[in-house]
Amino acid sequence: MSTHSCITHLSCSHCGTTYDHRELQTFCEACNRPLLVHYDLERARRAFKKEDLPARSPDMWRYREILPVLETANIVSLGEGMTPLIQVEKLGSRIGLERVWVKDESQIPTGSFKARGLAAAVSKAKELGVRRLAIPSAGNAAGALAAYAARAGMESYIFMPRDVPRINRIESEVAGAHVTLVDGLISDCGKIVAEKKAEMGWFDVSTLKEPYRIEGKKTMGLEIAEQFGWELPDVILYPTGGGTGLIGMWKAFAELEELGWISGKKPRMISVQSTGCDPVTRAFQAGQDHCEFFENAQTLAAGLRVPKAFGDILILKALRESGGLALSVSDEEIVAAVKEVAASEGLFFCPEGAATWAALKRLREDGLVQPDETVVLFNTGSGLKYPEIFQSASL
Amino acid sequence: MSTHSCITHLSCSHCGTTYDHRELQTFCEACNRPLLVHYDLERARRAFKKEDLPARSPDMWRYREILPVLETANIVSLGEGMTPLIQVEKLGSRIGLERVWVKDESQIPTGSFKARGLAAAVSKAKELGVRRLAIPSAGNAAGALAAYAARAGMESYIFMPRDVPRINRIESEVAGAHVTLVDGLISDCGKIVAEKKAEMGWFDVSTLKEPYRIEGKKTMGLEIAEQFGWELPDVILYPTGGGTGLIGMWKAFAELEELGWISGKKPRMISVQSTGCDPVTRAFQAGQDHCEFFENAQTLAAGLRVPKAFGDILILKALRESGGLALSVSDEEIVAAVKEVAASEGLFFCPEGAATWAALKRLREDGLVQPDETVVLFNTGSGLKYPEIFQSASL
Repeated sequence: MSTHSCITHLSCSHCGTTYDHRELQTFCEACNRPLLVHYDLERARRAFKKEDLPARSPDMWRYREILPVLETANIVSLGEGMTPLIQVEKLGSRIGLERVWVKDESQIPTGSFKARGLAAAVSKAKELGVRRLAIPSAGNAAGALAAYAARAGMESYIFMPRDVPRINRIESEVAGAHVTLVDGLISDCGKIVAEKKAEMGWFDVSTLKEPYRIEGKKTMGLEIAEQFGWELPDVILYPTGGGTGLIGMWKAFAELEELGWISGKKPRMISVQSTGCDPVTRAFQAGQDHCEFFENAQTLAAGLRVPKAFGDILILKALRESGGLALSVSDEEIVAAVKEVAASEGLFFCPEGAATWAALKRLREDGLVQPDETVVLFNTGSGLKYPEIFQSASL
Repeated sequence: MSTHSCITHLSCSHCGTTYDHRELQTFCEACNRPLLVHYDLERARRAFKKEDLPARSPDMWRYREILPVLETANIVSLGEGMTPLIQVEKLGSRIGLERVWVKDESQIPTGSFKARGLAAAVSKAKELGVRRLAIPSAGNAAGALAAYAARAGMESYIFMPRDVPRINRIESEVAGAHVTLVDGLISDCGKIVAEKKAEMGWFDVSTLKEPYRIEGKKTMGLEIAEQFGWELPDVILYPTGGGTGLIGMWKAFAELEELGWISGKKPRMISVQSTGCDPVTRAFQAGQDHCEFFENAQTLAAGLRVPKAFGDILILKALRESGGLALSVSDEEIVAAVKEVAASEGLFFCPEGAATWAALKRLREDGLVQPDETVVLFNTGSGLKYPEIFQSASL
């Protein structure tokens, strides 16, 4: 059965070279940049209406016409998507904001937003006949790949820093993945995958080194639009590691505009990193269009420990186009934020998600968010995956 | 704003004595048994139609007319409910079954189905003016109470066995709960709460010692009915600790029948326990109407370590009325089942959930489930909360 996907082709985000979506693609051969997916949105506009959505299943495949998979039989799903959007009035009122919301990506398969990207990438890989997948991961992407590969009946090969949260190794191994722990960072893991993939027959699903993870992540933006009744919030705070979600949401909003489902102002996209690894903040503040490799990255927010994102140019472009900005918070602020959010609202944020609350407080102090603005914090995963950050009995 | 709840009164599940839902209630004063909630289902039938549901939010409060909270402002929610129902064809085919589904309660606040019961209990407690809540917990209920109490702005006092999974302590403490670790089992914790509650001004939200957790758990049955298009499955396998979910689902099916939303055969309810603590299995097999206290309970499925459930009579009654049964599996079978399910389908079950898969294999061997039957396995929480069960690198 057809998904009625309106996908037409791929193109390089940098040089515009076009690529065929009916063949397996990675990134642009000409300029080594990520590929983006294009849809016939005129056709999509006729194919489905936003009024059709409530009757569909509450998962990300409700937007299948603007997702890349062609046949429903190829969709590899564990029920991912339509995570709750939760108003946090008590938290907001602490800093004079009335309309603060949390997009809670802990309530998703594998307990992190990585599920979306890998559901899309694994589904499309299945559609294109791939059998063996490989990934370098800062932690949660590993667990997500292992799960979706198992569900799809594919093999997965995972390379992670030796000191990732222990649960990431367990969740990967239990799902049958081949796990290699590496003395180094995700960048070192990425090099191993790049070197070995041809010989080993692996398809590399590194962030933005294939075109479809971003399409899965895009659904976070589609859901926010739907959940807010097709009026976007003023500000979105997003913890940037690889940055796929930020790029994906910005792409989603453009597609929704073209579909005619939203109009008016789009959100200011705010990138949040840890001072222990903040290449995007540095590049943004220096006015650069790309990031430098961040040496000696170290932060307990494992997902933010990405010294240089492959999509750096797209991240910085989205921040600037949206009128947003980038800022960094310390690991101490992150741990304090985990506790503050949990004690105030009962939401156990992952450290990456908690960074957005620490950042919002800073933005308020600096007068960069106004009292009447609607703000969304992205909690990108479950705090349950990070027991290591709380060692003492009294926390 | 009114929820349009059709609640009318409470009554004792044993002697029938009625109680007023507008006052704070615990359990029956006359005979020490659980109270059950009643609704005017004639009124509910007029108040809402199943066709109204798709347009409502994908959470358990979509059934608010047959839930106990009167005012929407009193609903304490973190987005719980409408968890995915996932077909597991590969797993089913291993034992000659074509229609096996998983109700995946890992994708919910706090990563376990305890969120439903405590969302309902905390909401109703808020509506009735309670400020301080106490609970004995085998693990996950603690995390759920801590979260919902924080969200509601209430205090929570938690008593857990010293050897609960570490994450249960962390998730409770981070949400600001007062946690006491007890050298003993949940039954010992329960005694402490019972002894101290009057003096300390605590409202005891122990399983079935207040009437509303069961109403939250009931929504698992409502969702299964809705997700299967108002045709119930043939068999439901449920891991029984306190048993609220099993009792709750059986109550839900009766209410749906009375509403006229379902008809025909109801599922056989199958209770699954660990051989390390299986009072329900023993009582069922002995033909008893109640359970004996299980001495020296020990199982790595922390949630099944309940030596005697307060709702034992209701559990056994539901099993027998449904034509179901009770069986036990070993901890070794449970660990093997966690791995088998994860490697086959990418779903990382908690040990309690995995027990249902081990049990289904046994039932097939014994010819107690037929090839054409539709079967639902309850995965009651996330495997991410149990890293302790995998100590070795190679699992």
